[in-house]
Amino acid sequence: MRVDELETPVPVVDIDRLEANISRLQSYLDEHGIANRPHIKTHKIPAIAQMQMDAGAIGITCQKVSEAEVMADAGFNDIFIPYNIVGESKLARLMALAKRVTVSVTADSAYVIRGLSDAAQRAGLTLTVLIECDTGAHRCGVQSPQEAAELARLIEELPNLNFGGLMTYPTSEYTDSFVRETRTLLADDGLQIERVSGGGTPAMWQVHVHHEITEHRAGIYVYGDRLTLRAGSVTLDTCAFKVHTTVVSRPTPERGILDAGSKSLSSDLHGLDGYGYICEYPEAKIYALSEEHGHVDFSACERKPEIGERLTIIPNHCCTVTSMFDEVVGMRGNEVEVIWQVTARGTVR
Amino acid sequence: MRVDELETPVPVVDIDRLEANISRLQSYLDEHGIANRPHIKTHKIPAIAQMQMDAGAIGITCQKVSEAEVMADAGFNDIFIPYNIVGESKLARLMALAKRVTVSVTADSAYVIRGLSDAAQRAGLTLTVLIECDTGAHRCGVQSPQEAAELARLIEELPNLNFGGLMTYPTSEYTDSFVRETRTLLADDGLQIERVSGGGTPAMWQVHVHHEITEHRAGIYVYGDRLTLRAGSVTLDTCAFKVHTTVVSRPTPERGILDAGSKSLSSDLHGLDGYGYICEYPEAKIYALSEEHGHVDFSACERKPEIGERLTIIPNHCCTVTSMFDEVVGMRGNEVEVIWQVTARGTVR
Repeated sequence: MRVDELETPVPVVDIDRLEANISRLQSYLDEHGIANRPHIKTHKIPAIAQMQMDAGAIGITCQKVSEAEVMADAGFNDIFIPYNIVGESKLARLMALAKRVTVSVTADSAYVIRGLSDAAQRAGLTLTVLIECDTGAHRCGVQSPQEAAELARLIEELPNLNFGGLMTYPTSEYTDSFVRETRTLLADDGLQIERVSGGGTPAMWQVHVHHEITEHRAGIYVYGDRLTLRAGSVTLDTCAFKVHTTVVSRPTPERGILDAGSKSLSSDLHGLDGYGYICEYPEAKIYALSEEHGHVDFSACERKPEIGERLTIIPNHCCTVTSMFDEVVGMRGNEVEVIWQVTARGTVR
Repeated sequence: MRVDELETPVPVVDIDRLEANISRLQSYLDEHGIANRPHIKTHKIPAIAQMQMDAGAIGITCQKVSEAEVMADAGFNDIFIPYNIVGESKLARLMALAKRVTVSVTADSAYVIRGLSDAAQRAGLTLTVLIECDTGAHRCGVQSPQEAAELARLIEELPNLNFGGLMTYPTSEYTDSFVRETRTLLADDGLQIERVSGGGTPAMWQVHVHHEITEHRAGIYVYGDRLTLRAGSVTLDTCAFKVHTTVVSRPTPERGILDAGSKSLSSDLHGLDGYGYICEYPEAKIYALSEEHGHVDFSACERKPEIGERLTIIPNHCCTVTSMFDEVVGMRGNEVEVIWQVTARGTVR
């Protein structure tokens, strides 16, 4: 079947580009001796995670326990969950997971670390815990090397935990100094920082300048999107992921309405202008989204589309798009080669 | 099971409030002799659609053919799809649906109308088509009564179609005059406008002032959200839908991080300040969302939450939230009474 025979809106992956993207980052990280631990939250598809492993990844990254459960069921046996896992029932699920595959997690507070230790004791296993460090993103993470060192000592002190190193997102200009200062603080305790996990697709080609980083977690690099186009880490020619849509209305000479809205493209903006890049009409602007309508201003385009015309859109943020669809189409040339189930979709707990 | 024993993030509906919301709008529309045709895109759950029908709705509204297929499978037999349906395969599905239940659709162009006529001919059935009119929303819809009249004549002229009236969204101050002018234009053709379908929860208590409206489509009214709170059509006491979350990090004295991000709350803003209303901390602001993290500024709150504390959030837009979850919990008091499958989730085609 040809891709243009598929009903829209439909997310489509160019498999040739996907393979090239997986291979390109793996080669780069190999060249610099940095382990690759791709984040599967972007695609949530075991078959694509397997392509990443086959290329040389050392394991995968998942953002939630439920994502990791899906991936463990699919046969992946080394899973990092860089997240503060809180709550008795969720901790019990984490421990059940840690009994069947190699799991590491992160923490940025004594509260989370104590919860992990208690649960690991109850489960009778030892869990590897990294400290999440805020090196500029101002999300989670301890605020100083002093705090990182304190929590590392707590991990070592409490039963059934193993200090696994440091984690940050994204890797930044502050990462190396943060790691070095923490290392200095821990030297007297005899605690080594062996693993330093950094992340992010926007700055993925600069990972090698951060000498402290031992492994990298990138998610979007497999697909590419407008966020990473803006960052310059992917190009229009390497973007593997597009949402195919149809023009369903041309109510005015300038306005067009697409059959893809916030339930297909997501409302993620992150400072971008408009809700996606229309490949066939680069000057057009998707200026608003209803749930099932994309509102487009074509006034800057010399030629304007007809009703029924199919358009392909590079979304602002591919991760929030894929998680809304049950299936993603893989194409080679313009032929449908595979339909992937987004197996880990809906796994937010 | 108590609701506070559920893992988070989890969307929870207060069934008492849900029932009251359904009953309240039905009574209001009954009082004014306006038919109720609720939009199920908000909840996508057949059991809730059935509650709406049991209360007195004349039928339901779906936004996509796939949503309507799910609802037809669940036994609903009068479905309105106020959407331009384009493309051979989708039209074939629409006709298959129209063979088993009563279906009406809309169109705002000759292109769409011709497609519907061709498909209806092939299927050997007659389809009811309403004209979508833009009465101020600037989304889809013909721009003038003249255009509406022209398309109404085309529907009557082409085989296997039946002119079903006018549709607009949302009902506005321009709706009545648009309808009356179109009626005047069609008088000589002997074409009656019997059905005028308006919609929207924000202005639902003013529907009766629009004398031309014969039926109303509201979606959000069952749940309520921040958009409809802003509009004043729901209140904090009637909001039936909340996302329960947990504080997983307190990296600084002012900042808190929740376990719900854009993959749970959606990034819909629509001009609102922040990504949701935290019921326990009304002064707090959810100032950013990562996929699985909600970034909250608690600086305006006298008391600030601890890690592990559970918070309940009224999202900006409940429709884009429910469509991301496979299940929604129905509670009575604080006990889980039912877990609904979001059966029509993922149906964007």
